[in-house]
Amino acid sequence: MKKSKFARESIVTMTELVLPNDTNTLNNMMGGRMMHLMDIVSAISAQKHCNRVVVTASVDNVSFTHPIKLGNVVTLNAKVTRAFNSSMEVHIEVWAEDIPNNVKIKSNEAFFTFVAVDQLGNPIDVPELVPETPEEQEFYNGALRRRQLRLILAGRMKPEEASELKSIFNLPIVK
Amino acid sequence: MKKSKFARESIVTMTELVLPNDTNTLNNMMGGRMMHLMDIVSAISAQKHCNRVVVTASVDNVSFTHPIKLGNVVTLNAKVTRAFNSSMEVHIEVWAEDIPNNVKIKSNEAFFTFVAVDQLGNPIDVPELVPETPEEQEFYNGALRRRQLRLILAGRMKPEEASELKSIFNLPIVK
Amino acid sequence: MKKSKFARESIVTMTELVLPNDTNTLNNMMGGRMMHLMDIVSAISAQKHCNRVVVTASVDNVSFTHPIKLGNVVTLNAKVTRAFNSSMEVHIEVWAEDIPNNVKIKSNEAFFTFVAVDQLGNPIDVPELVPETPEEQEFYNGALRRRQLRLILAGRMKPEEASELKSIFNLPIVK
Amino acid sequence: MKKSKFARESIVTMTELVLPNDTNTLNNMMGGRMMHLMDIVSAISAQKHCNRVVVTASVDNVSFTHPIKLGNVVTLNAKVTRAFNSSMEVHIEVWAEDIPNNVKIKSNEAFFTFVAVDQLGNPIDVPELVPETPEEQEFYNGALRRRQLRLILAGRMKPEEASELKSIFNLPIVK
Amino acid sequence: MKKSKFARESIVTMTELVLPNDTNTLNNMMGGRMMHLMDIVSAISAQKHCNRVVVTASVDNVSFTHPIKLGNVVTLNAKVTRAFNSSMEVHIEVWAEDIPNNVKIKSNEAFFTFVAVDQLGNPIDVPELVPETPEEQEFYNGALRRRQLRLILAGRMKPEEASELKSIFNLPIVK
Amino acid sequence: MKKSKFARESIVTMTELVLPNDTNTLNNMMGGRMMHLMDIVSAISAQKHCNRVVVTASVDNVSFTHPIKLGNVVTLNAKVTRAFNSSMEVHIEVWAEDIPNNVKIKSNEAFFTFVAVDQLGNPIDVPELVPETPEEQEFYNGALRRRQLRLILAGRMKPEEASELKSIFNLPIVK
Repeated sequence: MKKSKFARESIVTMTELVLPNDTNTLNNMMGGRMMHLMDIVSAISAQKHCNRVVVTASVDNVSFTHPIKLGNVVTLNAKVTRAFNSSMEVHIEVWAEDIPNNVKIKSNEAFFTFVAVDQLGNPIDVPELVPETPEEQEFYNGALRRRQLRLILAGRMKPEEASELKSIFNLPIVK
Repeated sequence: MKKSKFARESIVTMTELVLPNDTNTLNNMMGGRMMHLMDIVSAISAQKHCNRVVVTASVDNVSFTHPIKLGNVVTLNAKVTRAFNSSMEVHIEVWAEDIPNNVKIKSNEAFFTFVAVDQLGNPIDVPELVPETPEEQEFYNGALRRRQLRLILAGRMKPEEASELKSIFNLPIVK
Repeated sequence: MKKSKFARESIVTMTELVLPNDTNTLNNMMGGRMMHLMDIVSAISAQKHCNRVVVTASVDNVSFTHPIKLGNVVTLNAKVTRAFNSSMEVHIEVWAEDIPNNVKIKSNEAFFTFVAVDQLGNPIDVPELVPETPEEQEFYNGALRRRQLRLILAGRMKPEEASELKSIFNLPIVK
Repeated sequence: MKKSKFARESIVTMTELVLPNDTNTLNNMMGGRMMHLMDIVSAISAQKHCNRVVVTASVDNVSFTHPIKLGNVVTLNAKVTRAFNSSMEVHIEVWAEDIPNNVKIKSNEAFFTFVAVDQLGNPIDVPELVPETPEEQEFYNGALRRRQLRLILAGRMKPEEASELKSIFNLPIVK
Repeated sequence: MKKSKFARESIVTMTELVLPNDTNTLNNMMGGRMMHLMDIVSAISAQKHCNRVVVTASVDNVSFTHPIKLGNVVTLNAKVTRAFNSSMEVHIEVWAEDIPNNVKIKSNEAFFTFVAVDQLGNPIDVPELVPETPEEQEFYNGALRRRQLRLILAGRMKPEEASELKSIFNLPIVK
Repeated sequence: MKKSKFARESIVTMTELVLPNDTNTLNNMMGGRMMHLMDIVSAISAQKHCNRVVVTASVDNVSFTHPIKLGNVVTLNAKVTRAFNSSMEVHIEVWAEDIPNNVKIKSNEAFFTFVAVDQLGNPIDVPELVPETPEEQEFYNGALRRRQLRLILAGRMKPEEASELKSIFNLPIVK
């Protein structure tokens, strides 16, 4: 196994057409269907980084602000932002496009976390992630803060220990 | 429209069998499929509260800690925790059961938020939610804190304004 | 294995949203899709009673009297009514709800029968079913009559031997 | 509209491959999936008889005696047996084939009933059914008896009025 | 294994209802869904000829000239036209029917080629195909020409070697 | 509408995970499922070129030479090669990847043709396609030859009129 890999090696693009069964009675794509696609595209991205079978560990807060209509084309871009031992955080950006009307909007962003496992399902170490571009560097830096928030929300870290996260509140860190 | 409704009026239970297409190559249910089910059960719960068409507004952090196997039975219990103008927060609790082996575990918990809309898709007010049991009261109280976290994560509130949220860090609120 | 179990231990509730692919050109849910759901919910109920893999043995007459529309919410309640050696009869009650219009109707009732099998697919004994409520007692009593009708319709019992069934014709039983 | 049509004009054959999502954990096709196929093939047969949109009115008792395995080929043959005002009874015969092992069995038989409807969903008369072969004649004759059983089971006929049905019990008809 | 089989022994008929998820925003069946059905029906036909597992080897040019609407009934008839060592060419004819409007058109024709394989996926010989009717004889004769075109298009035969194919251009064969 | 667009403006990438229901009993992806994906990705590519609803007009010969396994990742790259009045030819290249084993192969290539239509389904003119790279130029040049073959195979052109196509046989064109 390689010791480290670049973020760009994990890029995955998925394009889907919004079909009738993906929609509610207003003909808008349902949020759950979108998360289903996000999970698949980001799992493939994480697989590319570690060349292992991966399982979803967590999904960060996702907002849905723009309705996506039946017949729209949805494009999901995924890229690993950082690796921690056996886990990888993946960033997903979703674009929705009404091609006949030439309208394209950025509809969602999300962070999914995956764990690499062996054939028995036990966690196994993955290569480190090396960011190259400024954007990749920013995602890499923020990954620690998001990880602390995840651990607190899952009840596995005490809020007062989350030094990185506290910085977003512009408060002095309690030592 | 009623001015208020009880939490228990929005209870919805969904039971599903994990089928081959729901699973990855380790025969474990994929996280995205689970979120798809969570979205449907909680949307129905929100609909029951407001008697309106609803659209998914956001999904809070979800953790996946236990693998759910092919052939397992998944039970999702949803209940509205609190209403804010046109939006409703729904709590979902997921149980996974391997019935032949008599094993049942609580696999996930999640909070989804929905907005009630009219036929044009515009937000419309919903009844207030009245908690009755101690658990419902606790969910009701925590809803404000979770809402602030959601707004911050969506970039729609500044961290220093999130007075409720700050309390989880046990720090004095900056005025 | 327990020697007997209560009917209430086998209760299963399934809630589903009627999606476009479930409907015909009148936007009504197709009967075959409904039976597909009935089979899954009742199989899970039978599994809960016997803690075994189960296979569908038969479906009793099902009537479809009310159209269920696209976007409606369908709730299926299943409960085992009686056990016979390796087989179990399950009662399913289906409710259809148009939530925005606040209309809820009982759309169907059905009885499905399952056989518990081992890993080779051979039948295996199941616990007896103990009814508690008056309704459970009534279902328990009627199960024998329905079983005779099933056996006659499957050509495995002669009509003149069906003493229980004959009683519904209010005729003296031929001895 | 024609006043009458032959049974053979309504013949429909459907062939399906049993796919992973159609099966349970023993790799056997689930009964509910089979009924879903039965409903579609017999609805098309009824449509062919009346050239109208049809809705499922009822399903008679169906038995499942042979397991059908993943990868098997299932063939369903449907044909209308008799018409009554706006309703049609359809007979379905199902064959399951393990082609590589050259094994073909008759796995099920069923009777589904459909009602022809206009665009508002109201019942509308259909042509009479004219049987030609001895088998078609036998199905035609039995249709009246099965219809009485259906009406009794749906609570829409009193058992003592079911003169045709009583004959299967070899009992004198009460006048 | 038999040394030869008749074309008629491989006949397979598949009937499908066009459902919402099969259609585009004009409510027309998508070409890709049609090819999915063609592949299944012709794979079953090839299986019937050789009593082996088969894999798709190639699809010849398919044209789509008539829109098929939501709610239409599609009938696919498949029959093996000729066998070559381990491969079989299957002809598929597709009819689309708008039953309520009593309109039936021949919508497509196609040739799919399959290879019979053993459990390791290696090619294995199949029986010869014996045509009986004039139409079967014509398909049998044309199979050689179509095979040459396939091999040229796949880059596995030089155009100047395709003596059968050249005849369609009415040109002298270069020796 | 623009008078012309570059080939690169129509690039679409689709990535899919091969799920159980996509596979046959050897756990290989079925050809029909692959063609279903090819149709969707190339329809989106054609839509991007013309900003119109498009319908599939034809599929050229497709070969399947490498088995693609359950759990593999399939990547489809589509790009318009040339426009003719209201029709567009799209080239699709498919890659199959077994990520844990670090194996990636080019599994298929195909050409699909689409027609742009208005809301009534009538053909409507599309922009011209401007090739830029040598590869795009080669696809552009070959499009005329492939179009003649398509027209001949659909019985809409006489072989002796197909001057471009004849050149692949290295024969003098008959005038």
